[in-house]
Amino acid sequence: MEVTFLGTGAGVPSRLRNVSATALRPSERGELWLFDCGEGTQHQFIRSDLKMSRISRIFITHLHGDHIFGLPGLLSTCSLAGDPGPIALYGPPGLEEYVRTCFRCSGTTISFPLEFHVVEEGTILDDGGLTVRCRRLDHRIDTFGYAVAEAERPGSFDARKAALLGIPSGPVYGRLKRGETVILPDGRSIDGRALCGRPEPGRSLALCSDTGYSPGAVDLASGVDLLIHEATFTERHADLAALSLHSTSAVAARVALEGGARRLVLTHISSRYAEGHEESPSSLLAEARTIFPETELAEDFTRVVVERRRA
Amino acid sequence: MEVTFLGTGAGVPSRLRNVSATALRPSERGELWLFDCGEGTQHQFIRSDLKMSRISRIFITHLHGDHIFGLPGLLSTCSLAGDPGPIALYGPPGLEEYVRTCFRCSGTTISFPLEFHVVEEGTILDDGGLTVRCRRLDHRIDTFGYAVAEAERPGSFDARKAALLGIPSGPVYGRLKRGETVILPDGRSIDGRALCGRPEPGRSLALCSDTGYSPGAVDLASGVDLLIHEATFTERHADLAALSLHSTSAVAARVALEGGARRLVLTHISSRYAEGHEESPSSLLAEARTIFPETELAEDFTRVVVERRRA
Repeated sequence: MEVTFLGTGAGVPSRLRNVSATALRPSERGELWLFDCGEGTQHQFIRSDLKMSRISRIFITHLHGDHIFGLPGLLSTCSLAGDPGPIALYGPPGLEEYVRTCFRCSGTTISFPLEFHVVEEGTILDDGGLTVRCRRLDHRIDTFGYAVAEAERPGSFDARKAALLGIPSGPVYGRLKRGETVILPDGRSIDGRALCGRPEPGRSLALCSDTGYSPGAVDLASGVDLLIHEATFTERHADLAALSLHSTSAVAARVALEGGARRLVLTHISSRYAEGHEESPSSLLAEARTIFPETELAEDFTRVVVERRRA
Repeated sequence: MEVTFLGTGAGVPSRLRNVSATALRPSERGELWLFDCGEGTQHQFIRSDLKMSRISRIFITHLHGDHIFGLPGLLSTCSLAGDPGPIALYGPPGLEEYVRTCFRCSGTTISFPLEFHVVEEGTILDDGGLTVRCRRLDHRIDTFGYAVAEAERPGSFDARKAALLGIPSGPVYGRLKRGETVILPDGRSIDGRALCGRPEPGRSLALCSDTGYSPGAVDLASGVDLLIHEATFTERHADLAALSLHSTSAVAARVALEGGARRLVLTHISSRYAEGHEESPSSLLAEARTIFPETELAEDFTRVVVERRRA
C-alpha cells in the first residue's frame, strides 16, 4: 500500500498546499484509488508520477467544495485522454447530482462508465482481498471516514514437510495451502494450517477528514497500520476547531492513541501554519507527538508506504 | 487597460498552460474583470500579482468545463477571504444553474451578492465610460465573444484661450470642457469643442474563444486595439479545427485582418504545441504573422497593456 498526498491544505489552496486529495495504490495490481478531489487535483497529478488513467475508485468524504470541486475536471480529462475503464465513485447523497449537473451544464460527455455508490456506515466494498469500511464522522455536513484493509495472507506452505508426510502432489496441495483440512486416499486427515507458516496480517489504513473528535474515527483507526487524520489547527485555536467541527493536532493524536493505530499522518492543514506565517507547521507536529510519538506531517506529494508486517 | 493571461491552454491543463482564464484591468479604477474561469484559476491568481478581491465582473464565453470548472472554487475562496463586494456574472443560459447547484450540493454560502446576467447579442453593459458588447461565435455549444470599449475622452481644455476670449470663470468652464455650446451673459455663443484639443479615442479590445471562423468575431474585432482570439491548432490540423469548431492560427489572423484590429494575441493553445512535443509553439506564431504581422502568442501570466492612442 502506498499513499501519495496530493492536497494537504484546508479550505482554500495556498502556494504550498492544495485542497484535499489523497491517492492510494492499494495493492501491487497497479490500480489507483483517490480519496477526495479538491480543485486542482488533476494539476497535482501532472506534477506527480501518478497516472490518472489508473484511477478505478474515488471515495469522497463529504461534499464541501475543497473536497469535490476538482472532480468534474478530473473525470473529463480522464475521458479526453482515452478510456481508463469504469470508475466507481463513493460518497454521501448528493454526489451524483453534483457531478451529473456539472456535466449536463457544461455539455461534458464521459467515454467510460461511472458508477455512483451512496455510502453508509459499514462495509461498502469487498474486492479481491481488500475491504473498505465506512463510519460517520462529526462535521458540519454528512461526512464519512474510510478504512481500507487487506485480507491476511496464509503463511508460506512447507512443501518439504508435506513430501516427508508422503502427501501425493496434485490439486490437494492447493487446498492445503489455503489452510483447508483434506482427507487423503489412505484415510489420513491433514490440517493444511499445520503445513503453513503463520498467516501474514493484511495492511490497513484509515482516512478521517474533515471531523472534530469522533468515535467513528477512533473505530476506523482501530489497529490500523496508518491513520491519516485531519489536523486543521493546533490547540491554540481549539475554539476555531470547535466552531468549525475540525480537529486540532492533539485531537488527531488522541484518536490514533485510542484506536491503537501504529502510525499517524496529519493532513488538512490550515494555511496559517506555514513558515513565515502566524505559526510554523512544526507546532502541529510537536503537539501531536507529545500524545502520539509516531506522527508525521504530510506535505503535498509526501509519499507514505505501508509495509507488510511479518508475523 | 491591462490584460493578464491566467490560462492559455485548450481543453485540459498542462505543465505550462492552465485552462482558460483572462483577467482585465479595464481602467485605472483598480477593479478587475475576468473572462472565463477554468479549473485552477484561483491557483493562478495566487501565482500572479493580481488580487481576487478586486474582481467585480466575470464574463463567461461558454459553459465547456475548461472555461467554468474553476468558478465555484474561486467564488467560495473570495467569500472565505472576506467580502469583495458584489460580483456580476455574465454568460449563456445555464451558468446560474451550474453555479447554484455546485453551491447547494457543497453547502457553500457566499458572503457577497452574486448577480447573474444571461447575455445575448448587443450591448450588455454600459458602465462608467466602459461598454461591453456581445456577439455569437461559432462553437459546439452557445458561445459568445466580448468586446470592451472605453468612451473617448474629450481633448484637453485650453484655459488660456478661454481667458483671452474673456469668458468668465465658473461653472461655464465645466460645460465648455465637456464640449457643450454655451451662451455667455454678453450674448456670445461659444462652442466648447473649439476650446478643446482633439478628443482622445477610448481603448478597446475583443476576446473570442472558443470559435471557428466567425462573422461575429470579425465584427467584435472591428477597429479594436487588441484582439484576443483562440488558436487551438495550426493549419496542419485544420481538419481537427473544423471538426471541433476551433480556429487555426491562420483563421485568428484572418479575423484580425478583416476586422481591422491593431494587434492580435493568440490563446487557447493545444498542448500538442510545446517545446519537445509534436510541433513547437513558434509554428502558431509564424503562421499567423504571414497574414497579420502584429501577432503575439500568450503564455500563462503574459501581460499585455493597451495604451491610449494620442489623437
